[in-house]
Amino acid sequence: MFTLDYEEVLSRIRSYNPRRILIQAPEGFSDYALKLADLIRDNFDCRVYVSADPCFGACMLPYDAARKLSIDLIIHMGHAVIPNMNSNRVLYIEMRSDVDLKKAVAKVIDILEGYRRIGLVTIVQHIDRLYEAKEVLEEYGKIVYIGKPRLRAIYDGQILGCDTTAAEDIAGNVDAFLYIGGGLFHPLGVALATGKPTFAVDPFTLQVTDLGNVKRRFLARRYASIVKAMDAKVFGIILGLQPGQMFLDIVEEIESILRRYGKTVYILPIHIFDPDILSSFRSIDVFVNTACPRLALEDSFRIDRPVLNPNEVLVALGVKKWDELFRDT
Amino acid sequence: MFTLDYEEVLSRIRSYNPRRILIQAPEGFSDYALKLADLIRDNFDCRVYVSADPCFGACMLPYDAARKLSIDLIIHMGHAVIPNMNSNRVLYIEMRSDVDLKKAVAKVIDILEGYRRIGLVTIVQHIDRLYEAKEVLEEYGKIVYIGKPRLRAIYDGQILGCDTTAAEDIAGNVDAFLYIGGGLFHPLGVALATGKPTFAVDPFTLQVTDLGNVKRRFLARRYASIVKAMDAKVFGIILGLQPGQMFLDIVEEIESILRRYGKTVYILPIHIFDPDILSSFRSIDVFVNTACPRLALEDSFRIDRPVLNPNEVLVALGVKKWDELFRDT
Repeated sequence: MFTLDYEEVLSRIRSYNPRRILIQAPEGFSDYALKLADLIRDNFDCRVYVSADPCFGACMLPYDAARKLSIDLIIHMGHAVIPNMNSNRVLYIEMRSDVDLKKAVAKVIDILEGYRRIGLVTIVQHIDRLYEAKEVLEEYGKIVYIGKPRLRAIYDGQILGCDTTAAEDIAGNVDAFLYIGGGLFHPLGVALATGKPTFAVDPFTLQVTDLGNVKRRFLARRYASIVKAMDAKVFGIILGLQPGQMFLDIVEEIESILRRYGKTVYILPIHIFDPDILSSFRSIDVFVNTACPRLALEDSFRIDRPVLNPNEVLVALGVKKWDELFRDT
Repeated sequence: MFTLDYEEVLSRIRSYNPRRILIQAPEGFSDYALKLADLIRDNFDCRVYVSADPCFGACMLPYDAARKLSIDLIIHMGHAVIPNMNSNRVLYIEMRSDVDLKKAVAKVIDILEGYRRIGLVTIVQHIDRLYEAKEVLEEYGKIVYIGKPRLRAIYDGQILGCDTTAAEDIAGNVDAFLYIGGGLFHPLGVALATGKPTFAVDPFTLQVTDLGNVKRRFLARRYASIVKAMDAKVFGIILGLQPGQMFLDIVEEIESILRRYGKTVYILPIHIFDPDILSSFRSIDVFVNTACPRLALEDSFRIDRPVLNPNEVLVALGVKKWDELFRDT
């Protein structure tokens, strides 16, 4: 399902001359991590560990584990480097899907009728084949735009859960967006950030989704959370401790605004988002998530109280307007 | 439900003259942690954080978070210090339940008929009232023994999930054990380690449990896991990274034994036990838990493959006998 040139990977590892390696991969690539561990042991005189801690992105680098195990090379499989987090202690091995995107495009082409100019976005696993998808769309008479990311993604057309700038870049030029990839969180981000009609097609299952409906339900939920937060007195600000999720400045800004509005505020540092633990803080009315944006958006339904992102807190306080938050709502 | 002399706690904190404090508490004490944060802010010019990461014991001290947040004092609420983990950067605030243990004893006394010499054990929350319970038992004509722990617990009669030596200490003298406290994991440990009839009474719910049945079911499950592991080829050894759960020597010993038996072995470091992530390693047949012993015993049913503790691996390999593992089985 995923291809990897192991010879090339071994040669990249060799250039680090490592003695102690820690391999990290998201759940979907766990067995690829074991296979790589085998190859490393067969080829180098090296101690290899395979992390079994959660990994949802290149923002969760296992520096704590690496320090405790005296690791001299972290191999992070599956995600592309996040530019401002680059480190010479980390070797990024992106994984590429071998699935043909042409079928996915053929499957979604009917629903794209009525939209001429299409913005094309995907995740890193499919990035190599995005231009094939572009060609097929063009054969169907579409004008296709692929934008440049400017925050945490690095490839043209690549989006992350926390970076849809490759879509925003071209939003003014297009009538609709097409996301090719799994999950609905990434294209929902595109729909929210651009306000444009957005469609998703999963190249494995060939399932097609109009994000319009997803977005309406999502916004209703967000709105309900914000309304609940309007009367709240006690706020718990979640402070991410993962390498790429620790935004102390945002925490302190939101904290001081909340205090100015007479709220009681607690700062809750976390490495891992655990809804049960957050729920156990009974005296907190509203959680503010400053770590990974997905926490508030995807996991918040697992907590019985609102989990807002910082901008949503500003709406709850009346500092910002709802319309400033989400376009075309 | 729990009492805490906050004036005394504040005076203990004052002696550290801290600037940046991180409070950590197990889930059950989350709101006590918030209350302490309020008091600290009201009384000191201090930055306070309240950890929302998992905390199941004094072995999970938040040193990683403390380093990232430049903390100069960790306040660990709820558990007693583990002697070999003591640190002058950590202030332990044990919590004491205000529940009367006499009622619990009265409730369990019938089931103790036929046992004259009783070993009494509890968890730290009830330790102050253990001698009241002893007196009530003596009024009923029992001879009561309270043993001395020698590993990680510090009070006479105190047991931990990883330390039942306060029971083992007196096992030769008693006919049965009485555990006063919540949960069945602690008294199950006593029943397994001593081979003696063991009874538990929860002082809050007054529920009484004969651990004999729990132990039989438990042993059947453990035996099934060990049998499954006998034919296994691929082992994943879980290496705990929490301060008091990192047993590298045990990992390396088990690893070398497994290799000697021709097994494929991977070392899987974890901070957090996540059954989904472990399950995602499809090519692993058996997990070996060297971190917190509870992981293999309590959480292993959430994984579709055996999770064995090191001794159980030795039984699976035929190095040890089942009878050496659990007494009186």
